[in-house]
Amino acid sequence: MPIGVWLVGARGSVATTAVVGAAAVRAGAALPTGCVIEAAGFPGDFPPLADLVFGGHDVVGTPLRKRAELLAQAGVLPPALTTLLSADIDAAEAEIRHGYVPGVETQAEAARRLAGDIADFRERHGLSRVVVVDVSSTEPPAEVPYARLTDLEEALESGADALPPSSLYAYAAFSAGCGYVAFTPSAGPTPPALDELARRNGAPYTGRDGKTGETLIKSALAPMFAGRALRVRSWSGLNLLGGGDGATLADPAARASKSASKARAVPAIVGEDVEGLTHIDYVADLGEWKTAWDHITFEGFLGVRMTMQFTWQGCDSTLAAPLVLDLVRLVARAQEAGHSGVLPELGYFFKDPLGGAGHDLPAQYARLVEFARSLAGETVTDEALKDETPTGDRP
Amino acid sequence: MPIGVWLVGARGSVATTAVVGAAAVRAGAALPTGCVIEAAGFPGDFPPLADLVFGGHDVVGTPLRKRAELLAQAGVLPPALTTLLSADIDAAEAEIRHGYVPGVETQAEAARRLAGDIADFRERHGLSRVVVVDVSSTEPPAEVPYARLTDLEEALESGADALPPSSLYAYAAFSAGCGYVAFTPSAGPTPPALDELARRNGAPYTGRDGKTGETLIKSALAPMFAGRALRVRSWSGLNLLGGGDGATLADPAARASKSASKARAVPAIVGEDVEGLTHIDYVADLGEWKTAWDHITFEGFLGVRMTMQFTWQGCDSTLAAPLVLDLVRLVARAQEAGHSGVLPELGYFFKDPLGGAGHDLPAQYARLVEFARSLAGETVTDEALKDETPTGDRP
Amino acid sequence: MPIGVWLVGARGSVATTAVVGAAAVRAGAALPTGCVIEAAGFPGDFPPLADLVFGGHDVVGTPLRKRAELLAQAGVLPPALTTLLSADIDAAEAEIRHGYVPGVETQAEAARRLAGDIADFRERHGLSRVVVVDVSSTEPPAEVPYARLTDLEEALESGADALPPSSLYAYAAFSAGCGYVAFTPSAGPTPPALDELARRNGAPYTGRDGKTGETLIKSALAPMFAGRALRVRSWSGLNLLGGGDGATLADPAARASKSASKARAVPAIVGEDVEGLTHIDYVADLGEWKTAWDHITFEGFLGVRMTMQFTWQGCDSTLAAPLVLDLVRLVARAQEAGHSGVLPELGYFFKDPLGGAGHDLPAQYARLVEFARSLAGETVTDEALKDETPTGDRP
Amino acid sequence: MPIGVWLVGARGSVATTAVVGAAAVRAGAALPTGCVIEAAGFPGDFPPLADLVFGGHDVVGTPLRKRAELLAQAGVLPPALTTLLSADIDAAEAEIRHGYVPGVETQAEAARRLAGDIADFRERHGLSRVVVVDVSSTEPPAEVPYARLTDLEEALESGADALPPSSLYAYAAFSAGCGYVAFTPSAGPTPPALDELARRNGAPYTGRDGKTGETLIKSALAPMFAGRALRVRSWSGLNLLGGGDGATLADPAARASKSASKARAVPAIVGEDVEGLTHIDYVADLGEWKTAWDHITFEGFLGVRMTMQFTWQGCDSTLAAPLVLDLVRLVARAQEAGHSGVLPELGYFFKDPLGGAGHDLPAQYARLVEFARSLAGETVTDEALKDETPTGDRP
Ligand SMILES: NC(=O)c1ccc[n+]([C@@H]2O[C@H](COP(=O)([O-])OP(=O)(O)OC[C@H]3O[C@@H](n4cnc5c(N)ncnc54)[C@H](O)[C@@H]3O)[C@@H](O)[C@H]2O)c1
Ligand SMILES: NC(=O)c1ccc[n+]([C@@H]2O[C@H](COP(=O)([O-])OP(=O)(O)OC[C@H]3O[C@@H](n4cnc5c(N)ncnc54)[C@H](O)[C@@H]3O)[C@@H](O)[C@H]2O)c1
Ligand SMILES: NC(=O)c1ccc[n+]([C@@H]2O[C@H](COP(=O)([O-])OP(=O)(O)OC[C@H]3O[C@@H](n4cnc5c(N)ncnc54)[C@H](O)[C@@H]3O)[C@@H](O)[C@H]2O)c1
Ligand SMILES: NC(=O)c1ccc[n+]([C@@H]2O[C@H](COP(=O)([O-])OP(=O)(O)OC[C@H]3O[C@@H](n4cnc5c(N)ncnc54)[C@H](O)[C@@H]3O)[C@@H](O)[C@H]2O)c1
Ligand code: NA
Ligand code: NA
Repeated sequence: MPIGVWLVGARGSVATTAVVGAAAVRAGAALPTGCVIEAAGFPGDFPPLADLVFGGHDVVGTPLRKRAELLAQAGVLPPALTTLLSADIDAAEAEIRHGYVPGVETQAEAARRLAGDIADFRERHGLSRVVVVDVSSTEPPAEVPYARLTDLEEALESGADALPPSSLYAYAAFSAGCGYVAFTPSAGPTPPALDELARRNGAPYTGRDGKTGETLIKSALAPMFAGRALRVRSWSGLNLLGGGDGATLADPAARASKSASKARAVPAIVGEDVEGLTHIDYVADLGEWKTAWDHITFEGFLGVRMTMQFTWQGCDSTLAAPLVLDLVRLVARAQEAGHSGVLPELGYFFKDPLGGAGHDLPAQYARLVEFARSLAGETVTDEALKDETPTGDRP
Repeated sequence: MPIGVWLVGARGSVATTAVVGAAAVRAGAALPTGCVIEAAGFPGDFPPLADLVFGGHDVVGTPLRKRAELLAQAGVLPPALTTLLSADIDAAEAEIRHGYVPGVETQAEAARRLAGDIADFRERHGLSRVVVVDVSSTEPPAEVPYARLTDLEEALESGADALPPSSLYAYAAFSAGCGYVAFTPSAGPTPPALDELARRNGAPYTGRDGKTGETLIKSALAPMFAGRALRVRSWSGLNLLGGGDGATLADPAARASKSASKARAVPAIVGEDVEGLTHIDYVADLGEWKTAWDHITFEGFLGVRMTMQFTWQGCDSTLAAPLVLDLVRLVARAQEAGHSGVLPELGYFFKDPLGGAGHDLPAQYARLVEFARSLAGETVTDEALKDETPTGDRP
Repeated sequence: MPIGVWLVGARGSVATTAVVGAAAVRAGAALPTGCVIEAAGFPGDFPPLADLVFGGHDVVGTPLRKRAELLAQAGVLPPALTTLLSADIDAAEAEIRHGYVPGVETQAEAARRLAGDIADFRERHGLSRVVVVDVSSTEPPAEVPYARLTDLEEALESGADALPPSSLYAYAAFSAGCGYVAFTPSAGPTPPALDELARRNGAPYTGRDGKTGETLIKSALAPMFAGRALRVRSWSGLNLLGGGDGATLADPAARASKSASKARAVPAIVGEDVEGLTHIDYVADLGEWKTAWDHITFEGFLGVRMTMQFTWQGCDSTLAAPLVLDLVRLVARAQEAGHSGVLPELGYFFKDPLGGAGHDLPAQYARLVEFARSLAGETVTDEALKDETPTGDRP
Repeated sequence: MPIGVWLVGARGSVATTAVVGAAAVRAGAALPTGCVIEAAGFPGDFPPLADLVFGGHDVVGTPLRKRAELLAQAGVLPPALTTLLSADIDAAEAEIRHGYVPGVETQAEAARRLAGDIADFRERHGLSRVVVVDVSSTEPPAEVPYARLTDLEEALESGADALPPSSLYAYAAFSAGCGYVAFTPSAGPTPPALDELARRNGAPYTGRDGKTGETLIKSALAPMFAGRALRVRSWSGLNLLGGGDGATLADPAARASKSASKARAVPAIVGEDVEGLTHIDYVADLGEWKTAWDHITFEGFLGVRMTMQFTWQGCDSTLAAPLVLDLVRLVARAQEAGHSGVLPELGYFFKDPLGGAGHDLPAQYARLVEFARSLAGETVTDEALKDETPTGDRP
């Protein structure tokens, strides 16, 4: 039975790559390279890629075909695909609705409208469930002053702009009973009031900030240093990127969210503070590509200092899109299996994993595999639902 | 009760660093940075570093003090230590015996002499057990034509040079009932006849070729690519190193052993052939340091190619010596717990792990931790000894 | 008046990029980026790019359109150009003739045929002059045993295979009175007998082996170290490349020519031997791209060792093609100005400059600029012709 | 006849390395590696290193011996030298006077005291001339509001703090008739009023900000791109450094001076704006060492983008000290030859060359060599003095 993918930021690079890529795999024009759950030997039974139906919100009007062409010119999509898959692109285009822009309507009105768009999409396509994925522009860090759901709803009904946009989308998703993936470092589903709503409505969620580059490598290398009892003394980095995401991060306020998200992995893994900064620079000339250089100093036996450097040259949307397709199916399966609230088992996918999931990549992968295995065998019983401990660690 | 460490190649860089380093930790002048089993949280109970007593074989006469001074000049040892720990250095010096040089004596004579040196060392120092570690110069690849122990012993008694030197040392070690660590890529304990001897005499062994640099990183990164379903297309590398090991590897025959050992990790982990060569160059100007550059191309969603490069600048002896100190204590504990024959559980330490241990670093680490935990609880019973399956994988 | 460009290896990557690129500039679809003599401020008057007419020899039949499409897929040519410039591509296609394959005809016959093809091309198009450029596959190193032209011609007439193919092409070019550019490391015009022929027929030539990547950087950096009195102690490198050139260099014999050519720059510039090797590996996955990593150790004040590394990621044909277009016009102008024999003033373009031109890039550039300036003012007189000292350095 | 070297910042890393290094060369314990004017073939006759006598100002009291020992531990000085050359170190120690600290005395008083210290040093040692070198901590950018010397002197006499400290030192140096080297990016001699004073008192000066690392490489590579008509599109960099200089630059105000100085080279050489930032991070763990990573994107034929990266791992004081020793002797010779005011011919040594010297390293080197040659032949005549055009470019 088909599954809906509702993309917030539906005209962005990640969203467009996900739409075109899923269609390409369905058409037999590409393999699902980069999809974690499609790898040989990965356990579990998930909805096939071919069963995904796409829609979403955005605040700009650039036609999806145009975005696909630009991505083809930038080397993200094979040029032939845009023509080959134009029917699929147009189908997604037809399902994109106006996103939320502060000031135009009250947040209470917006929330109803956004949730309505999603529910309508679900009904028209006869979807078993819809998962909402935030792949919109990163917001500046934001605090939400309403700890309980009732306080929040009261504030909204009084006409207040109570939430950052990303959290408003999460509010709408949960209101519609949908699972949610926070692929950006924005606040999204993190306010406790939203967790309350998610659990009440049986909606699982996960996040945040897709781990696709420098932080991915950090979380693979830092456990190596820790296991070998080599003491990491400094870890410095410079990320250069162009594209829409780069342009957004050229704004220091938005960059603050991303930098916070990137800074957590290494000290968390090695268990002590580590000197060094991570810079993010917008370099328009890099287009949709990113280059990151990291420089690590570490101490070995008898105090000897050694050094490791790496350069990562990745195409962010290429790395992100298949993970979006994985996450939608994992969250849909989790909801089907009766999970609601935060899913720390999916920490493997994120720079700043929600639910206390830890940053160590091998440990995250082991936990993901175990979760996939458990989903495959799981039957939803009242017992199981009662045992859910939504915000803590499940072993 | 003290444990003996018998170093084959006792005057080399790794050996000297191990001797001086263990003394420095005992004297409170250094922390055991780089010792895996000393890391916070590592399970099990192992003989303390302070209980190790050193001796060994070598074929050159350079005094250990001189070697230590050269290593201090090269930045491997803090200059002050050589003076501070001169008594410990002299104690090890007094326990170094003539190694085996082909042609001087028959191998049968040599084997008896070498085993005698070790047994004598054990008795004079009242050691509970001695572990022999091969840290001598890498040999060219070699085949041993005697599959069964009886055939081998017959050949030796007939005066034949039946074994490469590293295997003769392993033969002597097993004859003396000692555990053995193959820290080099040489043949060492790998001929089946020697495995037979090891099991007969209750001697555990492990190897081979300490994993301290480029291959260590490979085995940390390749699982990351595999888990993310990113297809590794090429992996090329250039290793530049000076020092005694570098000078040995300048010889193409010796280099062949090392290259073979380095080539196995990536294809084994990602499950398919990967294009690319790994070069090893001797660069005298680098002294005791090594620089490795690796260049990786990988394929992501929709066939997009991406690149990762890393540069590793390590001091090989600094990285190797604490592992030697770990391995001696792990093998001693394993022998105490009744293990004999190959120990695949220690694959974490090696480029070319014996006993079918796999190359994936996180998996190797998990197995090591489990082994350490089991050793802590294990009691030797006849049942346990019977269950040993010495050359296969133990789960 | 139009100038002919006769490409040996006319269906290769460099040749195809030169043909398409010149047409693109003529059509106003591209700027002459990468053309040295088109840079703002470069002195002299050269035939415009639009005046070049293309033809050549090759030994394979792949249509030029097909090659252009493959280059577009590999990111070397903008995809739109192939369609836009199909008339120009077909025009060049129509001028490609069968190249020389050993064994099919005698070399004497082949030389007459090849020279005839060139002369015929010149006449049919009413070209003032034709410059022959060797951009065919690199040959293994070769010795030519005939020092004098008469000996060589005698051998040829007796039916001997006296020359490597690249030298046979140079022989044909000089016989037809054409200038010649040795863009490969092959022997080409270097046998003294050919220099004799070139001077006799008023044909200037230059080479060899286009300097487009690692060696270019070497020749820019080594003078920096020398000027600063920093002593270069080692220089190691690894070149990874795919494409047709890479496939050719996968053969150790062909690679020997290239390695010799690459090894000369650094010691020549710094004035002493420098430790270290330069490796060349074929990595098919890199397609038409090349990555080179260089690692340099140098000594500063009081013996302190320091390190520099660089990674160069270039598209070889993109870098080579505009230089081919420069060289053709420089050689044509030089011939017009009465030069014959070797042109050391063009050493700036080559890894292994003929005529004693030196390897220091800034010095080479100064000499090129001076030459361009002198060509602009030069008039051919008998005097000038007599003063030519073809194989030495002209200040 | 001996020459005086007066170091402002005499207890810093660069100063200490210069003092110890000059003594080491004099004692025959080291070669003048890194001294530009000592390289084989460099023209001219300069005062020998052995003729230099050292003194200076500083504001901290750490004994020079202590600083030398710390530098030895950091790998900047060979440990044996500190003991071997203790007499020379003590001789310099005896010539260090209290520097200027704002607030303690008026600037007018301070200027008289500082100039007096220098004049006294000159007399006591019978020095033909003294050159003052600013190797003190980098200051924040500063404006000096007094354009003419009379205005400045009036302000000083009225008790005003009219100058940043570095300019006060330059004022004192010129007052004492001494040449001056601005090795830091601080304002130093740049206020026009000071240029007036320098010319009036026959004092030559040069600067600013020693070019010893990333910018040195930039100025060697950018002309290569320009000559080849390759269009540099972005140039990004991250500098990691520890030591006293790093600690100073951890302050954003001081860093502003350094960043401004580093930003000028590339656009100046390639003739257009280039995207990208250069970051400077303090990483204490790097000690006296610096690592810089630069990432360059450039455009070639038909718009194809290519990339170059480099990593520079240098010891800043090792690179700077021999240049200080060069500059002192060049400025002393220039003063002897009658030069006064700015010396643009020495732009080769600086990141931000004063006097309109340009940033292109090969061009700077050619100009330096020509200047050295001219100094060798030059005789001071009234004519020559009249022809000086102190602040402009001399061809
Ligand atoms: N690509 C990766 O690897 C990766 C990894 C981690 C996180 N992310 C995050 O994913 C997000 C998307 O990245 P991208 O490269 O596609 O960026 P993009 O700039 O191409 O796309 C963002 C889209 O969001 C839309 N948008 C902005 N505000 C919106 C709003 N209020 N409502 C609805 N849509 C809105 C924009 O119009 C745009 O179409 C970014 O926040 C990025 O930080 C990406
Ligand atoms: N990180 C590392 O240092 C590392 C990692 C993996 C493997 N290894 C291996 O460890 C070994 C030791 O490395 P090293 O840097 O100390 O080398 P080294 O050259 O400094 O020392 C080797 C010593 O072995 C001695 N030797 C040679 N032949 C012998 C023989 N037949 N019997 C006894 N002694 C003999 C030599 O005299 C020398 O003292 C090498 O084989 C190396 O490949 C080292
Ligand atoms: N930057 C650069 O691209 C660069 C720099 C220096 C030198 N070169 C040299 O330029 C040459 C061309 O490089 P490419 O990348 O175009 O290679 P390529 O393999 O794409 O093209 C070579 C062409 O030469 C043809 N050829 C082979 N033997 C021939 C013969 N006997 N007669 C006529 N044609 C023959 C082949 O069929 C092929 O079409 C190579 O030798 C390369 O080493 C290139
Ligand atoms: N090392 C290089 O390669 C290099 C290159 C270019 C510029 N520089 C500049 O050279 C300077 C020195 O570098 P360093 O590494 O020796 O730094 P450092 O911190 O080791 O030394 C600076 C010294 O200046 C002294 N000082 C501070 N304020 C002073 C004052 N008002 N009067 C007198 N002395 C004062 C300090 O006490 C200290 O001893 C820095 O400004 C640095 O930016 C160095
Ligand atoms: Na898998
Ligand atoms: Na010189």
